[in-house]
Amino acid sequence: MPLRSVAIINVTGYIGVDLARILLRHPEVEVTCVTGRSAAGKRLAEVFPHLSSSGLVIQSELDAPVDVVFCAMPHKASAETCEPLVAEGMKVIDVSADFRLRSRETYESWYGVEHPCPHLLDSAVYGLPELHRDRIREASLVANPGCYPTGALLAVAPALSSGIVDGDIIIDSKSGVSGAGRSLTLTTHYAECNESVAAYAVGGHRHHPEILQECRLLSDRVGELLFLPHLIPMSRGILSSCYMRLRPEWVSGTADISSRIAVLYREFYAASPFVVVVDTPPATKHVWGSNYCHVFPHYDSRTGRLLVISAIDNLVKGGAGEAVQNMNLMFGFEESSGIDQLPVFP
Amino acid sequence: MPLRSVAIINVTGYIGVDLARILLRHPEVEVTCVTGRSAAGKRLAEVFPHLSSSGLVIQSELDAPVDVVFCAMPHKASAETCEPLVAEGMKVIDVSADFRLRSRETYESWYGVEHPCPHLLDSAVYGLPELHRDRIREASLVANPGCYPTGALLAVAPALSSGIVDGDIIIDSKSGVSGAGRSLTLTTHYAECNESVAAYAVGGHRHHPEILQECRLLSDRVGELLFLPHLIPMSRGILSSCYMRLRPEWVSGTADISSRIAVLYREFYAASPFVVVVDTPPATKHVWGSNYCHVFPHYDSRTGRLLVISAIDNLVKGGAGEAVQNMNLMFGFEESSGIDQLPVFP
Amino acid sequence: MPLRSVAIINVTGYIGVDLARILLRHPEVEVTCVTGRSAAGKRLAEVFPHLSSSGLVIQSELDAPVDVVFCAMPHKASAETCEPLVAEGMKVIDVSADFRLRSRETYESWYGVEHPCPHLLDSAVYGLPELHRDRIREASLVANPGCYPTGALLAVAPALSSGIVDGDIIIDSKSGVSGAGRSLTLTTHYAECNESVAAYAVGGHRHHPEILQECRLLSDRVGELLFLPHLIPMSRGILSSCYMRLRPEWVSGTADISSRIAVLYREFYAASPFVVVVDTPPATKHVWGSNYCHVFPHYDSRTGRLLVISAIDNLVKGGAGEAVQNMNLMFGFEESSGIDQLPVFP
Amino acid sequence: MPLRSVAIINVTGYIGVDLARILLRHPEVEVTCVTGRSAAGKRLAEVFPHLSSSGLVIQSELDAPVDVVFCAMPHKASAETCEPLVAEGMKVIDVSADFRLRSRETYESWYGVEHPCPHLLDSAVYGLPELHRDRIREASLVANPGCYPTGALLAVAPALSSGIVDGDIIIDSKSGVSGAGRSLTLTTHYAECNESVAAYAVGGHRHHPEILQECRLLSDRVGELLFLPHLIPMSRGILSSCYMRLRPEWVSGTADISSRIAVLYREFYAASPFVVVVDTPPATKHVWGSNYCHVFPHYDSRTGRLLVISAIDNLVKGGAGEAVQNMNLMFGFEESSGIDQLPVFP
Repeated sequence: MPLRSVAIINVTGYIGVDLARILLRHPEVEVTCVTGRSAAGKRLAEVFPHLSSSGLVIQSELDAPVDVVFCAMPHKASAETCEPLVAEGMKVIDVSADFRLRSRETYESWYGVEHPCPHLLDSAVYGLPELHRDRIREASLVANPGCYPTGALLAVAPALSSGIVDGDIIIDSKSGVSGAGRSLTLTTHYAECNESVAAYAVGGHRHHPEILQECRLLSDRVGELLFLPHLIPMSRGILSSCYMRLRPEWVSGTADISSRIAVLYREFYAASPFVVVVDTPPATKHVWGSNYCHVFPHYDSRTGRLLVISAIDNLVKGGAGEAVQNMNLMFGFEESSGIDQLPVFP
Repeated sequence: MPLRSVAIINVTGYIGVDLARILLRHPEVEVTCVTGRSAAGKRLAEVFPHLSSSGLVIQSELDAPVDVVFCAMPHKASAETCEPLVAEGMKVIDVSADFRLRSRETYESWYGVEHPCPHLLDSAVYGLPELHRDRIREASLVANPGCYPTGALLAVAPALSSGIVDGDIIIDSKSGVSGAGRSLTLTTHYAECNESVAAYAVGGHRHHPEILQECRLLSDRVGELLFLPHLIPMSRGILSSCYMRLRPEWVSGTADISSRIAVLYREFYAASPFVVVVDTPPATKHVWGSNYCHVFPHYDSRTGRLLVISAIDNLVKGGAGEAVQNMNLMFGFEESSGIDQLPVFP
Repeated sequence: MPLRSVAIINVTGYIGVDLARILLRHPEVEVTCVTGRSAAGKRLAEVFPHLSSSGLVIQSELDAPVDVVFCAMPHKASAETCEPLVAEGMKVIDVSADFRLRSRETYESWYGVEHPCPHLLDSAVYGLPELHRDRIREASLVANPGCYPTGALLAVAPALSSGIVDGDIIIDSKSGVSGAGRSLTLTTHYAECNESVAAYAVGGHRHHPEILQECRLLSDRVGELLFLPHLIPMSRGILSSCYMRLRPEWVSGTADISSRIAVLYREFYAASPFVVVVDTPPATKHVWGSNYCHVFPHYDSRTGRLLVISAIDNLVKGGAGEAVQNMNLMFGFEESSGIDQLPVFP
Repeated sequence: MPLRSVAIINVTGYIGVDLARILLRHPEVEVTCVTGRSAAGKRLAEVFPHLSSSGLVIQSELDAPVDVVFCAMPHKASAETCEPLVAEGMKVIDVSADFRLRSRETYESWYGVEHPCPHLLDSAVYGLPELHRDRIREASLVANPGCYPTGALLAVAPALSSGIVDGDIIIDSKSGVSGAGRSLTLTTHYAECNESVAAYAVGGHRHHPEILQECRLLSDRVGELLFLPHLIPMSRGILSSCYMRLRPEWVSGTADISSRIAVLYREFYAASPFVVVVDTPPATKHVWGSNYCHVFPHYDSRTGRLLVISAIDNLVKGGAGEAVQNMNLMFGFEESSGIDQLPVFP
């Protein structure tokens, strides 16, 4: 079978360049075009010395049709870029936020811009394979999830979908600094964030409505969401500690709550090659550089709450790796093709 | 006025050596004895090159009476060490956990040992100056708080004491690695914890009953506590994100909830020189190397919850600095004497 | 062609576990046995959660013949382990220091032990593929180089072998903390080495004679070596800055010294897939998690010296990856088989 | 004695803000003005939350005469700012490079700008107290040394001034990221420099002529200098490993070379309160947050070279602390006044 041709739009951000790292070694595809406005004309290997073995030159625009486009533009610009590609019949995986929210109003309210192509919202599929695997297989346009939503949803989905959770959810997430992107800010200036931890976006993070949307699709018992992200002095990784309230009637009727929850989680992910339900608290280092997600459910008997902790690499399972997983599904490749590297430890 | 004589028992741990750093420059005292069993006979400057200007030699035992003893032994051994010193009439500040819990049963259940001198529990004062300043002034034996309880309690105390909080409390804390002490473990081996974040003590951390004890002294409306600590790849600092539920009747009768909470917090700490109520989310780096605590209360209108975030340096305000603050109170020195250095940033 | 069977002796150290990470995904081999004394009986996935997808159980000893053994024991114990395996005809790649030095006397003087099997020294091949590729192909016993020697020798080899260097060499190396291994020490305790850089082994590091041996094989003009290693607060990576003196007669007769040196370096590594001669100063991050080595030669016209900087991942090209590269050569696989992952950046 | 009034010009850079941290607690002075163009009008505590206890407001310009001005502007702008202040009779400590180099030509060649006030070069004193203490006491305009020169010169000065060194010097320095300043660059973007080490300014760093100037004042036997700086993933600290050649005649006539060198170093710094000659390799962490410099001389008998390693905090002894040390000398305060805090470890 001939290799499928792939393009990466805006290869110069962290998701873009991690797509390049993965796709340049993917056995089923050939990267035929990478674009990036400011770096156009330069060799990819010059801008990113870790890709020194690649001979690609960064283009200013996609110059020829390909089988699949990964679009890693900022929001709004991304939708504008994707629309004609979809119209031309290319498969598109958008790693921006533009097609993640079902509701145009919610999108416009949280992102503060008019949606460039709301007519595509209906056909776009939210690309969390563990929740929407079958629809992704049929999709032409996949909205790759945000990094926080990936980790948070994989933590809460089995509990929500089984109907054992009730009420508000609190998600306290800790992210490595690469999650803030490659644009220069004082917040991500080394000396400012090293040896420090802080919460941010306390008034509301844009991943809030995305997490809530999928939670409510999973369960109609979900109340409100309090999502608080923190910046951690490390390059990669997101750990999410998720606090949920179990339905009293389920708790009271349950003999061994912890075991039942563990079984429920293992069954939910039985067919998902990248999610591992672990029985000791996960560390982001256990998934570093890989597409794996470790999920640890724990029943807190003092408060009767369900605590679930998940760990992902924000740029792989929370970004480029998940996007390639979606591509694999869309083209009928092995789901783990090209993304089965084991985490790099230590 | 002559300098007061001071001894540090077990100077070789991180709290002990940070006590040395502070006390060697304290204008009102002279460090006359530092002890440490394994390093006895060595010069302090040899074991800790950053104290190269000190001529002290580490003793195996306290060899002469002093005005005040800081005891930084492991739990149980600490109580055993403190008991005769108290009996001899020395003032003692114990940085171990031995005299923090009012209830002997709770202590013995969480620490798994018999308490060596339960008769001292009644007279020992819990040394969080912002809560017990007056009693500390009169105390002979002060139980210096744990690092997590210091940060957590300073975050929740104003809300609890004002009676606006009801029900369970969730405290999600993030600590630098020095909090785990100087004993060698795989968990604190550089390559294992660098570039990683993980929760630990998920089943229950020993600071749990300490936090809960003080919360319940502050308010009888407090329900259960879910306290989850995380290890962060940095040397110093604890950030605690505390989630509380506001009493519905207080919320409904309140015009500008956020402002009212801010006022309430500022008033509570008006006489406390080291607690700063801030209006942007704090970072542990903002208090690095200092005795300051930054507290940020925030009303989350989506869930009606009160979120309060606090930042401390776990070894200073959460350890050695707070112990010196207690000494200052016990001897009638300026409360900030010797611990008024500004945080080192960046 | 059937998969070759592979064993890893002492999988619980950092080289051992990185061998597992690589070999578990190597297309030509099957890992049939991993050993580790203290962890024997446990599942590999339990001890190392990042290998959670593996079903291997750690054995106490190698229990059946395999095609190739990677031995990651401490020195002396490693030679003792390898000897019978070699005698039984298995191919052995020893990642300890036991077979690296040609001279038994030098070995015994630097390592302070008697060599357990000096008769194997003659047939053992020093496994730096870029210098000894052909001999490695024929070898039964390969001595995998130390991490510092790998980086240092790849930096200096082209210059030495071309005869343009004269006199003493100074090598100033900076290593990530994983290079110090997984055994617990105060030096590698997180809070002690984080936010710090220091030299160590100032009186002489055991990699000194190894570097010097290979330098002298490359050129008889080499004088003495001053090798100074430093510990850097990062998990992986070695940067070596190598200062050499160019022969005055070569400099004086050379028009464009910098270009000539660059050409000489590129030609030397033309057939080496993992060494990239770069034209901007390399960063260890550019090779993180990969088997690549970036080499940057620079002529310092002020002093007439040749400065060459190299960057490797100490556990891959300086350890497990290089060992697999040696295996690939020994078995006639593609030299890059199983180790062609691109570096993980950022 | 009334407090002296102090101004900090450009308080918003890292040297500027560390000056504020120190001077706000200095017992002999009062900070009456801090300036910073972009942040003018904001409270200092708002821009730098770690200074939350200060009530100062950032001014756009110095608005009234003071006893001493610390000028932390970029080069050229700094000289332009200092000139009128000097003319008005204020004492000025310039932390930029503008008055460090005796030679206007050297300055203009390395900095690529015309010197704004070359007539001040003769009266400006190079503010390394350990070399020029007496002249600093009398100076009106002090050029505070660069961070690298401070560490490097304190390492080599005793050897050079005693005449035992001959020929070229190689200085391999490792700096924390704060040394690169507070301006945003990709090089200092967290995710780019974390977990990485790299050399930079390989063709020549601006501190090169500064180091060489002072070396040649100390000894006329000094040859050329090869100075190579590296960026290390930590916030603060510079470690400099300095390689010098000892005069053969001195070595041959010397019984115990190492001891003689140690004595020579200790005598040189006998009257310098901040330089400690240590007998184990120093770590930057041993001086973190302090004005101390640890110097470790070592005779490498294999090569006959003198290796000296020094450790400083680049922002304190290599910046703000040294500037205050200079002020103390200029005003007849205790040399260590306000800067005698012990290093913060760990």
